[in-house]
Amino acid sequence: MSIPYFYEPSIVAGQTSFTLNEISSKHCVQVLRMQENQRVDITNGMGYLFEATILSAHKKNTLVQIQSEKFIAASSQKITLGIGLLKNLTRLEWLLEKATEMGVYEIMPLLCEHTLFEKFKLERFQNILQSAMIQSQQVWLPLLATPVKFKEAIQNQKQAQKLIAHCEAADKLDIKKIEAASDCLLLIGPEGDFSQAEIELASAHHFQAIHLGPTRLRTETAALFALSVLKKF
Amino acid sequence: MSIPYFYEPSIVAGQTSFTLNEISSKHCVQVLRMQENQRVDITNGMGYLFEATILSAHKKNTLVQIQSEKFIAASSQKITLGIGLLKNLTRLEWLLEKATEMGVYEIMPLLCEHTLFEKFKLERFQNILQSAMIQSQQVWLPLLATPVKFKEAIQNQKQAQKLIAHCEAADKLDIKKIEAASDCLLLIGPEGDFSQAEIELASAHHFQAIHLGPTRLRTETAALFALSVLKKF
Repeated sequence: MSIPYFYEPSIVAGQTSFTLNEISSKHCVQVLRMQENQRVDITNGMGYLFEATILSAHKKNTLVQIQSEKFIAASSQKITLGIGLLKNLTRLEWLLEKATEMGVYEIMPLLCEHTLFEKFKLERFQNILQSAMIQSQQVWLPLLATPVKFKEAIQNQKQAQKLIAHCEAADKLDIKKIEAASDCLLLIGPEGDFSQAEIELASAHHFQAIHLGPTRLRTETAALFALSVLKKF
Repeated sequence: MSIPYFYEPSIVAGQTSFTLNEISSKHCVQVLRMQENQRVDITNGMGYLFEATILSAHKKNTLVQIQSEKFIAASSQKITLGIGLLKNLTRLEWLLEKATEMGVYEIMPLLCEHTLFEKFKLERFQNILQSAMIQSQQVWLPLLATPVKFKEAIQNQKQAQKLIAHCEAADKLDIKKIEAASDCLLLIGPEGDFSQAEIELASAHHFQAIHLGPTRLRTETAALFALSVLKKF
């Protein structure tokens, strides 16, 4: 069995022991049936990785001893994904999981003219990011903003590279020919695309329009395709 | 409303009229409420696009008149995705949908040593490919093979480029530095990865091991990431 890996946002550098929260403790003791002296790994989602050993296994508060800690610098490339909110929650959740696995820096849900959506379940979405971070063995949790209006979202963005993918005719760069910057903001439209007014506003704010290839991709597919192509390592 | 688009595998070049099958007719008449003289597009999933007009709207057999036909050549790049079958059907279905949207040429499900799967629902999976082809406005339906044992799958493959992604230590090429060939076979392991014996067998058959970056991707994420990066247009 590989060493179980837990997310504990409140663990900090320099601690010699730590009590796992109720969710981690339950998973550790009731699901994985772990016992004293077994090894676990823990991250705080902000770069720290702790190697620990169980001191006392309890389904609500399992105590572990920290054996070592390590700080792992974040990727030098920060991609922020601004995405038109999806009406279909399953598709949105899938996107959150996949974008996290791929190491996105931040997800910024956009309220666009053509956005149709019902409810933003922040806590549920945070849990998806956390699970995907753990699953993909990372130590940095992506940032997840609450939904923001398109008009406001594109103001004052300081990224070196600002890209917008849409389906309208325009002077576009082929995404495969772009040299991704280390600091990139990528906007993907909602089902129904960005409106003409939004596209013009983005252009006025120096966003470069990009072209994602010959097939018409769904919103979540477009986002993952573009992330995959832009991601450097 | 954009023009409704239907998949009809039995329509052939040169026809002047055509009767939509029961599924298309129902969708056309009962869901979209279409009537005589309205426009529809049809593809046979093998490169043909037909523009047509409804002659008689009927929920079981809608008759259309073909106005024009066009043959669109397939992409000059053919990527075949050989993928360790996923136990989780939802994840597999997502992958089928997304790979189709991205224009994969063929999907070859692999039975590997570490494959755990229950049932291969060919008809259901075919429907997913068809819907995704229509949704992404393509005229070529990807091929979907029935599951084949890894050992047999890698025999006699003639692609110019044969790639295998796995998590074991090996002499690997960074996928971002590969020049994708026009004819490429990409193997992605199951949950639990390829076995050591499978990796050695692939190497003996001149598969190049590739590296998909610093985070550990789920099977379906790895496949979509690699497809996105390799796809040329």
